Amino acid sequence: MPELRKDPVVGRWVIIATERARRPSDFGAAPVRTKGGPCAFCPGNEGKTPPEILALRPSDAPPNSPGWSLRVVPNKFPALRIEGEIEPQGEGLYDRMNGIGAHEVIIETPDHGATLASLPEEAVTEVFWAYRERIVDLRKDPRFDYVLIFKNHGEAAGASLEHPHSQLIATPIVPIMVEEELEGAQGYFRMKKRCVWCDIVRQERQNQSRVILESGGFVALAPFAPRFPFETWILPAAHRAAYEEIERDEAQSLAGIVGDLLRRMNQTLKDPPFNFMLHTAPLRTPHLDHYHWHLEIIPKLIKVAGFEWGSGFFINPTPPEDAARYFRGEAS
Amino acid sequence: MPELRKDPVVGRWVIIATERARRPSDFGAAPVRTKGGPCAFCPGNEGKTPPEILALRPSDAPPNSPGWSLRVVPNKFPALRIEGEIEPQGEGLYDRMNGIGAHEVIIETPDHGATLASLPEEAVTEVFWAYRERIVDLRKDPRFDYVLIFKNHGEAAGASLEHPHSQLIATPIVPIMVEEELEGAQGYFRMKKRCVWCDIVRQERQNQSRVILESGGFVALAPFAPRFPFETWILPAAHRAAYEEIERDEAQSLAGIVGDLLRRMNQTLKDPPFNFMLHTAPLRTPHLDHYHWHLEIIPKLIKVAGFEWGSGFFINPTPPEDAARYFRGEAS
Repeated sequence: MPELRKDPVVGRWVIIATERARRPSDFGAAPVRTKGGPCAFCPGNEGKTPPEILALRPSDAPPNSPGWSLRVVPNKFPALRIEGEIEPQGEGLYDRMNGIGAHEVIIETPDHGATLASLPEEAVTEVFWAYRERIVDLRKDPRFDYVLIFKNHGEAAGASLEHPHSQLIATPIVPIMVEEELEGAQGYFRMKKRCVWCDIVRQERQNQSRVILESGGFVALAPFAPRFPFETWILPAAHRAAYEEIERDEAQSLAGIVGDLLRRMNQTLKDPPFNFMLHTAPLRTPHLDHYHWHLEIIPKLIKVAGFEWGSGFFINPTPPEDAARYFRGEAS
Repeated sequence: MPELRKDPVVGRWVIIATERARRPSDFGAAPVRTKGGPCAFCPGNEGKTPPEILALRPSDAPPNSPGWSLRVVPNKFPALRIEGEIEPQGEGLYDRMNGIGAHEVIIETPDHGATLASLPEEAVTEVFWAYRERIVDLRKDPRFDYVLIFKNHGEAAGASLEHPHSQLIATPIVPIMVEEELEGAQGYFRMKKRCVWCDIVRQERQNQSRVILESGGFVALAPFAPRFPFETWILPAAHRAAYEEIERDEAQSLAGIVGDLLRRMNQTLKDPPFNFMLHTAPLRTPHLDHYHWHLEIIPKLIKVAGFEWGSGFFINPTPPEDAARYFRGEAS
C-alpha cells in the first residue's frame, strides 16, 4: 500500500511508494562527467568574469589574477540588479517592484574537474566559510531581507557551466518557501515551546531508520516526507537559526559531513546531477527560537510533471528508510 | 531592469526578465513528435489496460472492445490505491495515512498520432465532458476530498506513453496548492466581497495586454506573475467554482478555446512539451463565492533548479505581455 506522509514543518503531503519501491539502479539519470576546461571560471581567465567581490589568494597577489583558491564574483547575467531602489508599485490588483538584488557566483576551486565530493576537506571548508562571509556582508544592505545560497550540479540539474560553483541570490523579500517554513515552525513553537527541527533531530536519532550519518555536531538524514527520492537534509544537531553565525570549526565539520554524504550519493547513484539549497533565518530575524538552518540536497532523478505542478503533492518512488539504508551502505 | 511581480492569489513572487527577454526561438525544447503506435492504448489492445470505467462507443458494442472514441481506465501502475481505508496514524511528531485514492487515465482518442490540437472540436468536447463525468462519479466516494485532472504531453513533460491521454488523481486531502489558492482567495473575498479571479478577468479584459483570446464565455490569458515562460490560464469569464457544474455547451466552448490556444502554442513554440492542470473547488465545497476554476497550461521550456526549489521564487525569462503578443500573432 502506498503511503501519504506529511511534512511536519510546512504541512506538505507526499505519496511514498512503499511497494515496488525504486532502487538506485532503477533511475536512468546520466552520470555527471566533466567535458573539460578551460572556461571563464578557470585560472588565467579572471578578466572574463566581473571583478571579484571576495577571493582567497596569497596576500601579495593582485586581485583578479591567478593564484587564488576560491573566488566570489557577480553573476555576469544576473537575475536581479544590484543598483537601484525597490520602488513598490500597484497596478490595479497587482503588485510589482524593481528586481533589485544580488546574484553572485562562488567559484569553489580553480580545478575545473574537481567537485565538492573530491576536494579536500579544507577546500570545502573555505566554500562554506565564504557563504558565511557573503551573508554577513550582504546583510549590511538594508534593501535585502534574505540570502538564498544554492548549487546546481550537472546540466540536468540546471547548471549551465560545469566548473565547480555555487550561487547566491539576495532578495528584498523572504522567499515563500522559507515563509512557509517560518509559519509552520512558529505554529509548532506556539503549541510546544520547542523548535520543530530540534524535535525532528531528536526523534530521528532515537529511531535511527532515516539517519544516514552523524558527525561533528551535524546530522544527515532522509526526511520523513521527502519530495524526491534520496532527498537528504543536513542540520546542526543543536539549535542554530542563522547560518552566518557558524564558527570556523563548525564550518569544517559541515564540510566533512557534506563531502562524506556527496561521496555516498556518488557511490549509490552513480554521480547524479543534484541541487542543494541552504535554508537559513531571514537577515532581519537571525535569533529565532523556532527556526533552524538546514541544507537540503536533492539528486535529480525523476521528472516533475503535471500532477506535482498542479497539486504540490509529490510522488516519491523511494521510501526515505530505503534511501538511508543505501546511503549507509547496508543495501546495494 | 528585471521586475518582481506578485501573484495576487497565492502571494508568490516571480522574477520577470524585462530586458533581454527570451523569444520563442531562444528556447531549445525539442518538438514533440510521435514515434508511432500501436500501443496499449490503441484500439484492439483493450485487454492490455485494466477494464474500462467509462467509454464512448456505439451502444451495441461490448465493453473493452474496439469501436470506442474515448475510454477511461484505471492507471495500471497507480500512485494511490482504490481499495481500503485511510487510517490516519501518528508516529511521534509525524503524520501518515494509507495511500488511498483513484488514479485514472483518460484515453482521449483511438488515434495514436492525434493531439488535442489536431482533434476536431467535438472530440475535444468529449474529453472535457469525460472530466466532468468522472468528477461527478468520484465525489460519491466519501473518502475523497479532491480530484486533480492533469495532462503530461511529451516525454520532457513527464509523459511515459505518447498516445494522447490525460490523467486524474482523486485524493483524501485537498492538495496544498489548491489550499493556498483557497486561503489567498478567501482573504481577498473577506476584504473585497469579490472573487479574485473575477477581478483578474475584469482587469485583464480592460487592460488587454495579457489577453490572448476570448471566446464562448472563456478567456485565455498570460497571468501577471507567471512562473514559466508562455504559461497560460483559461478561465470561464463568469464566476464558476466547481468544474463539474459545466454545461454541455460550455464544455464545447472550452474545447474550442483550448484547441485554439494549443494550436497557437504549437505554432509559436514549435510543438513544445507541456503540462496542464485543472484547478477546481474541493469536492465537498462546490459552491464557493471565492473560488473560480481554471486551467493552467505550462509549456516545458526551461529547467527548474536550485533557486526555484529552495525559494519558491521563479525566474521567468519572458514577460507575459510578450508571450500574449506572440500567441496573438502580433510578434514573431
